[in-house]
Amino acid sequence: MTSHRRPAGRVSVNIRCVSSPPAVDTSYKTNVPRNANMAKLQAGYLFPEIARRRAAHLLKYPDAKIISLGIGDTTEPIPNVITNAMAERAHALSTIDGYSGYGAEQGEKKLRAAIAATYYADLGIEDSDIFVSDGAKCDISRLQVLFGSNATIAVQDPSYPAYVDSSVIMGQTDLYQQDVQKYGNIEYMRCSPENGFFPDLSTVPRTDIIFFCSPNNPTGAAASREQLIKLVKFAKDNGSIIVYDSAYAMYISDDSPKSIFEIPGAKEVAIETASFSKYAGFTGVRLGWTVVPKELLFSDGHPVAKDFNRIVCTCFNGASNIAQAGGLACLSPEGLKAMHDVVGFYKENTEIIVDTFTSLGFNVYGAKNAPYVWVHFPGRNSWDVFAEILEKVNVVTTPGSGFGPGGEGFVRVSAFGHRDNIIEAARRLKQLYK
Amino acid sequence: MTSHRRPAGRVSVNIRCVSSPPAVDTSYKTNVPRNANMAKLQAGYLFPEIARRRAAHLLKYPDAKIISLGIGDTTEPIPNVITNAMAERAHALSTIDGYSGYGAEQGEKKLRAAIAATYYADLGIEDSDIFVSDGAKCDISRLQVLFGSNATIAVQDPSYPAYVDSSVIMGQTDLYQQDVQKYGNIEYMRCSPENGFFPDLSTVPRTDIIFFCSPNNPTGAAASREQLIKLVKFAKDNGSIIVYDSAYAMYISDDSPKSIFEIPGAKEVAIETASFSKYAGFTGVRLGWTVVPKELLFSDGHPVAKDFNRIVCTCFNGASNIAQAGGLACLSPEGLKAMHDVVGFYKENTEIIVDTFTSLGFNVYGAKNAPYVWVHFPGRNSWDVFAEILEKVNVVTTPGSGFGPGGEGFVRVSAFGHRDNIIEAARRLKQLYK
Repeated sequence: MTSHRRPAGRVSVNIRCVSSPPAVDTSYKTNVPRNANMAKLQAGYLFPEIARRRAAHLLKYPDAKIISLGIGDTTEPIPNVITNAMAERAHALSTIDGYSGYGAEQGEKKLRAAIAATYYADLGIEDSDIFVSDGAKCDISRLQVLFGSNATIAVQDPSYPAYVDSSVIMGQTDLYQQDVQKYGNIEYMRCSPENGFFPDLSTVPRTDIIFFCSPNNPTGAAASREQLIKLVKFAKDNGSIIVYDSAYAMYISDDSPKSIFEIPGAKEVAIETASFSKYAGFTGVRLGWTVVPKELLFSDGHPVAKDFNRIVCTCFNGASNIAQAGGLACLSPEGLKAMHDVVGFYKENTEIIVDTFTSLGFNVYGAKNAPYVWVHFPGRNSWDVFAEILEKVNVVTTPGSGFGPGGEGFVRVSAFGHRDNIIEAARRLKQLYK
Repeated sequence: MTSHRRPAGRVSVNIRCVSSPPAVDTSYKTNVPRNANMAKLQAGYLFPEIARRRAAHLLKYPDAKIISLGIGDTTEPIPNVITNAMAERAHALSTIDGYSGYGAEQGEKKLRAAIAATYYADLGIEDSDIFVSDGAKCDISRLQVLFGSNATIAVQDPSYPAYVDSSVIMGQTDLYQQDVQKYGNIEYMRCSPENGFFPDLSTVPRTDIIFFCSPNNPTGAAASREQLIKLVKFAKDNGSIIVYDSAYAMYISDDSPKSIFEIPGAKEVAIETASFSKYAGFTGVRLGWTVVPKELLFSDGHPVAKDFNRIVCTCFNGASNIAQAGGLACLSPEGLKAMHDVVGFYKENTEIIVDTFTSLGFNVYGAKNAPYVWVHFPGRNSWDVFAEILEKVNVVTTPGSGFGPGGEGFVRVSAFGHRDNIIEAARRLKQLYK
């Protein structure tokens, strides 16, 4: 390590524009180099970027009655059975007997047991395989920290941007290649109507990690049992680890598996990450979980769960105890019924959106097993379509290309919304594209 | 990227012991190499390790009445004014008007404003410099992800283990050197009674990042204004960034600064991380914040806050909205008064512990400005003292060497406990060391 000493407030001169006087930048700069991986990231994270554009639109048209079918944010109240439990836990924290401080970093025993029993009964997943989190997105980053900068990854294209962005941040990738709109050293597994939104694995090179989201965000496609058997076999043949994002599993209407662990042998090659966000409206409450089976081993035989436990203990201190009380209530018989009702409500919204676009002659995908409708605008630029819908009828969607080059020409329409807003958005869209 | 294909369930033979038959390990292993940085970590994260030893003790002596003055976990109920606000927010989430989904990743506007007004009035810190978190430990890891694997760091020795461990995980360090009990490529700034627990900066080489905790965990020492002026000058001369952990600032009784931003020029070289955990008993509720002033720039002029914002948006989704409602209540006039009372209670505990050890002839440090008493056992091994106190009088402490080699010969005694437990622990310690 060399010692750099520079005087404070050193002056650098930037000539910003030919016709202006040279600007003198007198601001102090540290000698700490910016993390080169951060510099590789393109623009903002997708959803804040959409929020920014929405805000800019509102600034231009302060009276615009915007309906947001963009960021996939839940809108319906959390069922009472769940919030009552959280309020009760909050009050209990004011009592000697009910107070609790640091919880187990992995989550409260009761909640881990309830998650295992509710979602993984008969799948051989034990309570100790469950790590409670403050949400799937946070755990995706913690998993990336676990894998480290030398890991190679594959993602579905299009896919939820947190996989790619966290990979860039961890230094697993090369620079962004503007011409192909991909980062170097990531395998983009194209998922399109042509392949039924399941990648042609025969063309996919081996990577250490395969991020796979089903039901998929953004395409709404759920992989079938047959497809997942192929995926697990592919991972096993290659010795890869699948990070299976099942955050929308409760939206599955057909017989697609709700967990990767329904596939025999998956415990030896897969991690599953999940969330209460889209089931119970917990997007703001923050609660999820990740399953790391003890059968999953690195090449040297070291259990992945052991290292993940160390990450959770060092970089995290557990989800909020009040949120965990909510999670436990979610998994009571009344809570499960209430969550099913919430999911059912959003699924009705999905049908309205599907009917709208179908009636206008668009090809739509997804929707059946997910709260997302993936609408095809062949030959058009996604951001142009996004801007058109926002500017002309004040409806926020998400441009497909924000999820990867494979999303170009598509727009994701989220079914999260009050019913009257969904109906009004449908009316406006019919007006726009009639 | 080369393609590795290996058959599933390949067999490797490990000869584990000369006198046993060779063990045949038939378990399937992936071909994903374990992150070499994870392998560098020594044993478990300190506090889970203590919990493990405590549990082992209980297994051996099931009737032991253990008093824990170990992990620094709060024990007193959260004041009603705060839990009422959280319960109210929880209930509101069941109403159309009160429901909220994803919040701003940086925290709710009102809370950011209240934090800035309460703790940074007149210090030039703006609402937008405040990033609300789910706790200081979590933000320390996010900051490490921000700095990346090429950053070099310095820590106080002894120090809170999350700085060093997260640095190891990010790949900033070399291997652990057993002989000196330090990781390579970390600067350990010795803090001892001899230097008043403030490092001799003239002997410290430049690093990119300087982690500095004041009031310190574990030594309990708060740096004086004069010392912090030196620290800021040192950082400025070197172009380093200080990560200033002020999680115990409310425990300061003398005129030591409660924020690094009280020091002129600190905004250009410092980040401050803080927490409601030890003020309001939020160790389980999870709420903190980090201040990244917009004046803080990387060497290329890029604002650190801009990259931290990107990390927060990509790797985090904001603190729980219910916890944030609690944070806002903490900062109301009644909440502030209630927090001061809680802090005052623990400070009385501290005095009891100090009196106990002093009366027994020990040299004790810290305590005045922190909820930690740093007790000197000259010439003894910290873990031995820890084991002695646990085994003989069923009191859990924290071995000083768990915080770095500079902690050897010390034990940290936490003042977090019910009053009767503190009094009983004092009685037992007097019995042990009389």
